[in-house]
Amino acid sequence: MNKPIGIFDSGIGGLTVLKAIKKMLPEETLIYLGDTARVPYGNKSKDTIIRYSIENTNFLVRFDIKMLVIACNTSTAMSIEILKEKFNIPIVGVIEPGAKKAVAVTKNNRIGVIGTEATIKSKAYQNIIKTLNPKATIFAKPCPLFVPLVEEGLLKGRVADSVVEMYLKSFKVKGIDVLVLGCTHYPLLKNTIRRYFEGKVKIVDSAEETAKVVSDMLNEKGLLNKGKKEEDKYFVTDAAQRFLKVGKTIMGKDLKEVYTVQIGK
Amino acid sequence: MNKPIGIFDSGIGGLTVLKAIKKMLPEETLIYLGDTARVPYGNKSKDTIIRYSIENTNFLVRFDIKMLVIACNTSTAMSIEILKEKFNIPIVGVIEPGAKKAVAVTKNNRIGVIGTEATIKSKAYQNIIKTLNPKATIFAKPCPLFVPLVEEGLLKGRVADSVVEMYLKSFKVKGIDVLVLGCTHYPLLKNTIRRYFEGKVKIVDSAEETAKVVSDMLNEKGLLNKGKKEEDKYFVTDAAQRFLKVGKTIMGKDLKEVYTVQIGK
Repeated sequence: MNKPIGIFDSGIGGLTVLKAIKKMLPEETLIYLGDTARVPYGNKSKDTIIRYSIENTNFLVRFDIKMLVIACNTSTAMSIEILKEKFNIPIVGVIEPGAKKAVAVTKNNRIGVIGTEATIKSKAYQNIIKTLNPKATIFAKPCPLFVPLVEEGLLKGRVADSVVEMYLKSFKVKGIDVLVLGCTHYPLLKNTIRRYFEGKVKIVDSAEETAKVVSDMLNEKGLLNKGKKEEDKYFVTDAAQRFLKVGKTIMGKDLKEVYTVQIGK
Repeated sequence: MNKPIGIFDSGIGGLTVLKAIKKMLPEETLIYLGDTARVPYGNKSKDTIIRYSIENTNFLVRFDIKMLVIACNTSTAMSIEILKEKFNIPIVGVIEPGAKKAVAVTKNNRIGVIGTEATIKSKAYQNIIKTLNPKATIFAKPCPLFVPLVEEGLLKGRVADSVVEMYLKSFKVKGIDVLVLGCTHYPLLKNTIRRYFEGKVKIVDSAEETAKVVSDMLNEKGLLNKGKKEEDKYFVTDAAQRFLKVGKTIMGKDLKEVYTVQIGK
C-alpha cells in the first residue's frame, strides 16, 4: 500500500529507528517528526508525555499514514496503550521488540536494561521481560548522561569511556549476559559499550529489533509498498540547524532538508 | 517596599542565583519560577526563547513583584531588551554583572567565557565585554555537557574531571587569566574548574555578581524591604520531584515545597 509510515520521537534519537527501518524496508516512504521544541521527554511527568505523544500522532495522521512507529522509549512506555485506543492504525513501539529479543538470547536469565529515568521508572521493559520469562532476573538503570554525550557526538574517547564505566560497572558485577539499549540514542554508543564488556555481553539494539517488527507487521497485513517510493520527509518543532547537524552524526550522511512546524498550539 | 522579587529560569540552575540573592538580602521575599516543562532553553531557537521568557514574566508579575531577575543566561541573552520594553519594572539579567566583573579583574585582557550553545552564539557576553574594554581578547566556548553533569550531581570525580579537561584545555593554551561561568548551573562545578586551572585563573560566578547588582539597585531605588519577610515561593511547570531532588544539591538543603503550574497555555 502506497502510504507512508509515520515515525515520531521526542527529538533526534529516533533517527536510529528510522535508519534501521530504511535499511530493512528501502521501498517504504517515511515521515519523521522530532519534537525538538520540547525535548527531552525523559525527565518530564507522565501526563505531559502522554499529551505530547497524542499531539505528535495527530500531526502525523494528517499525512494518511498506514502505520505509526513510536521511536522513543519514554513515549512508548508512557503512551502506547493510550495511542492504540485513540488511533485506528497499527502502532509499533520500541520497547516490546527489544524486550523480546533479550529474552530470546539470554542464556543465564540475567538481563540488564538501560534507558532514561522515565523509561526505567515506568518498569515497561521490566514488566514485559518478566511476563515473557518469569525466571529472568532484571537489572535496570537510568543513564542520563548518555543522551547529551551522543548529541555532542562524543561516541568514543576518554569522556565516553569514563561515563560508560560509571554507569555500567555494576552490570559487570551482576554477571548479566545481555544488555538492552532502551533509549534510541544509545545505539550510537554500542561500540564503546561492547568494548567495555569485552564482547562478553550481548547488546540488544531496540532500533534494529523494532525495524524487524515493522517489516513483519507490514508483511502480515499486506501493507508493503508495491508502488513508487516517495521522498522521505523530516519535520521538527524547533532548532532545525541542530537537527541537521546531529542528524548527520546519526545517519552517517547529510539530511537534505527539514521542515519546522508548530505542534500542540 | 514589602513586595517580592520575581526570579525565573528555564529550570533548576537559576537556584544558584536565588541562593546568592538570599544570602546577600535575607530580608527579601523571593518568588522563583523554573520552566522545567520546557527546559533546556540552550538548544532552542531565539523566537521560542523570547516567547517562553515573556510567558514566564507574565506569570511572575501577577504577584506584584517589585523587580524581575532573569536567572538564566540564555533567556537574558535572547530576551532582556524585549522584556525591558514590555514590562514596567526594574529587570536584572545575569550577563552584564558577570561581564563587568571579568573586565574589572583581568590583568592581561585575555578573558574566557563559557555557557550554553545559545548564550555563546548570541555573543551577549562578548559584546558587553568588548564595549567595556575594547582591548580585551575574548575566548568563548559552549560546554553543553556541564548542565547534565550538574543535574546528575556529578560535581567532582573522574567523569567531572574528564569533561572539564575536554572543554577547558584550550583556555590553558590561550593563557586567559579570568573565566566567566556564563550559565547558572556552572557555579556548582566551580571547585573542579578551579582545581583544573591550579588556582591560576580567576573564576567569575555570574550568580554572585548578579546578587550584588540586585542589592545595589534595590538600595538606589529605595526598594529594600523594611517590613516582614514573607515565605519564599517556588513554582515549576513540570517534574516537581526532580526539582526538589536537584534543588537540594544546589541549595545544600531541602526545599520545603514546590507548586506545579501551567504556563503559556
